[in-house]
Amino acid sequence: MTSKLFKTRIDKKQIEHGSDFAPKFNEDGLIPCITVNASDNEVLMFAWMNREALEQTLQTGKATYYSRSRDKIWLKGESSGRIQYVKEIRVDCDQDVIQLRIQMEKEGSCHNGYKSCFYRRLSDSSSGTLEFIAEPLFDPSKVYGKSTS
Amino acid sequence: MTSKLFKTRIDKKQIEHGSDFAPKFNEDGLIPCITVNASDNEVLMFAWMNREALEQTLQTGKATYYSRSRDKIWLKGESSGRIQYVKEIRVDCDQDVIQLRIQMEKEGSCHNGYKSCFYRRLSDSSSGTLEFIAEPLFDPSKVYGKSTS
Repeated sequence: MTSKLFKTRIDKKQIEHGSDFAPKFNEDGLIPCITVNASDNEVLMFAWMNREALEQTLQTGKATYYSRSRDKIWLKGESSGRIQYVKEIRVDCDQDVIQLRIQMEKEGSCHNGYKSCFYRRLSDSSSGTLEFIAEPLFDPSKVYGKSTS
Repeated sequence: MTSKLFKTRIDKKQIEHGSDFAPKFNEDGLIPCITVNASDNEVLMFAWMNREALEQTLQTGKATYYSRSRDKIWLKGESSGRIQYVKEIRVDCDQDVIQLRIQMEKEGSCHNGYKSCFYRRLSDSSSGTLEFIAEPLFDPSKVYGKSTS
């Protein structure tokens, strides 16, 4: 079943070269989503959406994902107050990946308190060792109960 | 089996708050990879890596993925000459997503000729319609044979 928000996928020409928004959900009904800071492109997090999460994101303008571990729709920031407001949605060539471009009133997209989940980098490629490249913006123990949205 | 390039995953403290690089491969042996332009954060593409692809990327400094459709290791740019040189590798909080930060001599990461695979955006959230936000940098029919790397 196709909602009004999406089109039915027909062929490569339509999907890769056309203007129909026809996202592909995988065999588990999910599509990967890369969430970036709209103002400077910084990658903030990676999560999954099911059809309902994507529809809800489109309808509310607030980033909504599907939590595989909790098996439920997940309004980002519901517990923490750190809502991600969607400024733009991009899709990749074969429309099996979503890019959300968002803005937040209170930054901090990572459940560990960092602006971005990508707060560490490899110190060098053969070391197997990470180095921290950011400081937390908030104390997760004060923001969350048991939830981590 | 753990290579010298990665550490064995032990617990949440080590994985999320430590300095061990301990990437998680999913039940299919794959980890998602977000590839961005090192100079301006632009998201260029999304692909998957298996252990061998990640090891090869670390060892060669050239982005190497795993093609699920072709079931093989895929050196990006092998056909097109558009190699992605890795400047930095980041990992997310639970180390189940890789972020490659790359630079190219000849830009154009998308097999359709665009700099980025994300060359379209939703014109508005309820329209189901995409608009193009980029022009191709090269003509894919002149660059590729039947391959699309």
